[in-house]
Amino acid sequence: MGAKAAAALDEELMSTGAYSIDQLMELAGLAVSQAMFALSPPQKTPNILVACGPGNNGGDGLVAARHLYHFGYKPTMYFPKQTKNELYQRLRIQLEHLKVPFTDDFVGTAVKSDYIIDAIFGFSFSGEVREPFPAVIRALAEGKVPVLAVDAPSSWNIEDGPPKDGPGKGYNPLALVSMTAPKPLIKWFKGRHFVGGRFVSQAIAEKYGFDVPPYQGSDQIVEIGSHGERL
Amino acid sequence: MGAKAAAALDEELMSTGAYSIDQLMELAGLAVSQAMFALSPPQKTPNILVACGPGNNGGDGLVAARHLYHFGYKPTMYFPKQTKNELYQRLRIQLEHLKVPFTDDFVGTAVKSDYIIDAIFGFSFSGEVREPFPAVIRALAEGKVPVLAVDAPSSWNIEDGPPKDGPGKGYNPLALVSMTAPKPLIKWFKGRHFVGGRFVSQAIAEKYGFDVPPYQGSDQIVEIGSHGERL
Repeated sequence: MGAKAAAALDEELMSTGAYSIDQLMELAGLAVSQAMFALSPPQKTPNILVACGPGNNGGDGLVAARHLYHFGYKPTMYFPKQTKNELYQRLRIQLEHLKVPFTDDFVGTAVKSDYIIDAIFGFSFSGEVREPFPAVIRALAEGKVPVLAVDAPSSWNIEDGPPKDGPGKGYNPLALVSMTAPKPLIKWFKGRHFVGGRFVSQAIAEKYGFDVPPYQGSDQIVEIGSHGERL
Repeated sequence: MGAKAAAALDEELMSTGAYSIDQLMELAGLAVSQAMFALSPPQKTPNILVACGPGNNGGDGLVAARHLYHFGYKPTMYFPKQTKNELYQRLRIQLEHLKVPFTDDFVGTAVKSDYIIDAIFGFSFSGEVREPFPAVIRALAEGKVPVLAVDAPSSWNIEDGPPKDGPGKGYNPLALVSMTAPKPLIKWFKGRHFVGGRFVSQAIAEKYGFDVPPYQGSDQIVEIGSHGERL
């Protein structure tokens, strides 16, 4: 599902689908947190740095961090471009009430973290990495801490995959959780791949040219292989 | 946690806690659906009749039914007193898009169902069972289909438990999922007991005089015994 189709699907879910963004973001963020849990439980990797961009990808990260807290992790937030949007303000307050710390020092916090969640840019990424994110993405590309990316490794082109130069050159996260359906960039991705967003019917999936992922039981995520099969 | 405390906690979550009702209801309804899955998977008990009252308990039922659909169940809705509230309208539309049927015939549908979810009245129940619910609750009390009740068996007094007469006399559902924390009526309940609503911090729980339930992993529910221990 390309960037335009993903935007159209979100739009359709919120107009004729009658979903609120609160609902969709809550389920998306919960799926991200469950992918993190599937990768490594809080007893092994308690310290999670959650890097949030200014858009919906960052919102998913804010929600995920709250669920991670309730699962027993110790998340720290890097959220340098806070939108004034009311929903994002509320998601931030929810974390502050849990005493989840916010930091301005991505690089210094990253080296002390057990995992990083990259919720900086999603499918609406325009191709330009604006300040202060170039240094952050360079640190993601060059660092040794494992990364779970949300929907797209930040700075990757949704259709054409990893950038050939710039701060994201060589960035290949350990894991990715695609929201609703994998994007074309998955062709270039070699890590562990989850899909989340269990709120799309088969009819809607068919309209947008994908299959509902093979979710099991009451799980909100499923790990799939390169041919879409359950792992 | 008594009825007044439960109402105050909801109020606090939505005011200083900065939660929207969309968020809380989505997580509550998801917890209900996961309790249903824990009781019996869709392969064994596909046909679920979800009875929804006019208030928040009914809203949890509407959300739960949507997740049950995605888990592979075939829910049918009984929602005779539809509030004009915008959120409830949207939750109903979300189900209609999945072609989840709505029925006016509770008794006729109940006998063909494998399970019933009682999302009629919750902790704000006032003590009077208004039309058309007396016949519904009588059917729940007298029927043979297993019932999962949300927060309270409908018609039970939150503090004093089962009614001594009226339509709910003798009603004792197979299972109950308490939202956030068990209510005093749990003393009279003999079935399987789950708790859901994994969004309360230990600080808030202490303020309201309960412990955060012993949730495991990334689960949104936990089954507990009469002393609050994990089963």
